[in-house]
Amino acid sequence: MSLEFTLETRVGAARAGQLITPHGEIETPVFMPVGTGGTVKAVPQEVLEELGVQILLGNTYHLYLRPGVETIRRFGGLHGFMSWPRAILTDSGGFQVFSLNELRKVNEEGVTFRSHLDGSSHFFSPENSMAAQIGIGADIIMAFDECTEYPADRARTQASMELTLRWAERSKKYFDEHTREVPWKSRQPSAVSPQPNQIPRFARNDKFDESSTQSLFGIVQGGMDLDLRKESAERTVEIGFPGYAIGGLSVGEPRERTREVVEETLRYLPADKPRYLMGVGTPEEIVQYANLGVDMMDCVLPTRAARHGLLFTSEGKISIKQARYAQDSGPLDPNCDCRVCRRYSRAYLRHLYASNEVLAQVLNTIHNLSFYLDTMRRVRHSISLGEESRFLSSVWSRPKP
Amino acid sequence: MSLEFTLETRVGAARAGQLITPHGEIETPVFMPVGTGGTVKAVPQEVLEELGVQILLGNTYHLYLRPGVETIRRFGGLHGFMSWPRAILTDSGGFQVFSLNELRKVNEEGVTFRSHLDGSSHFFSPENSMAAQIGIGADIIMAFDECTEYPADRARTQASMELTLRWAERSKKYFDEHTREVPWKSRQPSAVSPQPNQIPRFARNDKFDESSTQSLFGIVQGGMDLDLRKESAERTVEIGFPGYAIGGLSVGEPRERTREVVEETLRYLPADKPRYLMGVGTPEEIVQYANLGVDMMDCVLPTRAARHGLLFTSEGKISIKQARYAQDSGPLDPNCDCRVCRRYSRAYLRHLYASNEVLAQVLNTIHNLSFYLDTMRRVRHSISLGEESRFLSSVWSRPKP
Repeated sequence: MSLEFTLETRVGAARAGQLITPHGEIETPVFMPVGTGGTVKAVPQEVLEELGVQILLGNTYHLYLRPGVETIRRFGGLHGFMSWPRAILTDSGGFQVFSLNELRKVNEEGVTFRSHLDGSSHFFSPENSMAAQIGIGADIIMAFDECTEYPADRARTQASMELTLRWAERSKKYFDEHTREVPWKSRQPSAVSPQPNQIPRFARNDKFDESSTQSLFGIVQGGMDLDLRKESAERTVEIGFPGYAIGGLSVGEPRERTREVVEETLRYLPADKPRYLMGVGTPEEIVQYANLGVDMMDCVLPTRAARHGLLFTSEGKISIKQARYAQDSGPLDPNCDCRVCRRYSRAYLRHLYASNEVLAQVLNTIHNLSFYLDTMRRVRHSISLGEESRFLSSVWSRPKP
Repeated sequence: MSLEFTLETRVGAARAGQLITPHGEIETPVFMPVGTGGTVKAVPQEVLEELGVQILLGNTYHLYLRPGVETIRRFGGLHGFMSWPRAILTDSGGFQVFSLNELRKVNEEGVTFRSHLDGSSHFFSPENSMAAQIGIGADIIMAFDECTEYPADRARTQASMELTLRWAERSKKYFDEHTREVPWKSRQPSAVSPQPNQIPRFARNDKFDESSTQSLFGIVQGGMDLDLRKESAERTVEIGFPGYAIGGLSVGEPRERTREVVEETLRYLPADKPRYLMGVGTPEEIVQYANLGVDMMDCVLPTRAARHGLLFTSEGKISIKQARYAQDSGPLDPNCDCRVCRRYSRAYLRHLYASNEVLAQVLNTIHNLSFYLDTMRRVRHSISLGEESRFLSSVWSRPKP
């Protein structure tokens, strides 16, 4: 056993459950902050722990380029390298490479691309995405897929979906043959001399036996075509994975379309396996998707918006750069208990942002993550109380003080 | 009473004591981190508390430009504005304006200068430096002085010293007449509506009565001329302040000269008043100056160097950008107990720096401050044990593990 998923409560399509990984337990539905290159930008790991983050997302593309898979492997995987003892999920690199546009070339074998850092040429295939993700050692890793561009006609969408299915088979085959190479326990002799207080490497959870390893999730594609989404879901399930993701959304389509595709795709995913919707969304959206029965989500929005001074609060969005906050002695969000809202005023946060201070990025990111995580906690609480219909009102329609 | 200074132990010229301010007690000798514009760059206030920071330095020039004195005053002073309940010292703005070079013009009345932010024209005099520092509300504020440039001939140095003495008289006169205007208790009615969990404003220490207020320190100038330093010290003491600073050093002169001037100047400062050496230095230097009998020091070095990847450790300086650390699993400083050294490896810190991650600035700054504060704690401990001669060896000549 390397993954255990238990559903505890259902209300309509929504579900609350528990996902047990080799590096800790995750209450679902869960929001996963994005730790692109081994760091959730501007936030120390101990603060992420304090915020209650149970699982982080790492980007294989970024980690592969810098610091490189071999370095991470030598530290017992990303858990050891970044000193994060809890669960990690990595994407396959496919979406990141897709985002490079001009710099990539796709064929049956895989994707040739140029690094955004130095223009050097690289190649990702299902096999070497798996090899990279095994070296990085996340608890959950993703099949290598092609994210279909938007818009795309039916023929193109179908061909892309078929490619993703063939790559899913190849991903699974490689993973099954190399699953024992996970670096969590490896302590290869190296040039690094032991130090008095050596950084710990975070061995696996004792909930599982010695044979526990990573889990590989499949990804459903099919563009905006509901029939192809159905086919992609069914054929991905046929290949067989311990969890399924919905990819290829949030690529420029209208939000109503996203919702429709998610709803349709979920119908064809097994109810007893975790379902991961990739790359969404706003606070309203993550509540809606949880309501539809999604168990896992990730998005750069809370962290990226924070760095641009856009803050999410129980009273709506705040652009902290605005002059109206320059004399505002109240907390950012009077209903938030995070370390930022407990201590700092809007005027101070506005001053930091206007002065281009690094601390603005730190504090803004901490608050936005806190708001997302808190939103998801409320959703789970509502589900466990059987109160599906109150998701939105409890989070967003609080009366103004 | 607004300031109480007690010497507890002396060893040779060195002294360990306690400085009690309206916002808390400070063990001396003390190193004061620089919080330029209301933030020690990249570090949240709660982490500064955890590091044991007892007093912060704020720059009047920066705070005057942004967010402006009136905004700070409305928040009950800088303590309330930045949510820092412990002691604060502000400089007079004189040194910062001095650093503007091309953008300033000095006459008897004061200094006209242009903002480095937008080129707008401003004027600082002893009177409006005092007014600004009273509005900012630090526990200790500094007389407005002219920092003599280096090199300068004797006539120029003397004229500059005389100007500083006249400005010291004017600073004291203005301060004495306006000392009741400290904003610590003011809660002016304003457009800001009260919020459920309003940010606290940090009223004064109950160790002092209601009449406690700020304290104004004088500054000794006199360039590199020992006779003029003596004269400046004696005449500044004659004006009479509760504490004295040594200014005009670290302006390009050789370090041996700095030490000589400090040593000579200290001879003419009263032993029972706190002595503050402005703008120094390296870890070695702050130990040396404490050894000479300096009680207070500040420097941007630990924070600025950190942002450039230069880290101070018990085993010497480390430039974390170097490739030699890319695989180094040891902590930054095996003898440091800060949250960075307890958790992260050199390889991880090197990765963050090489990737230009904001977290590099956060973690590097926390460690360097920890190292400086720890160095000063060891110095105080040595003095209290009567071990003057072991200052250097205990901090810097630790045997390699």
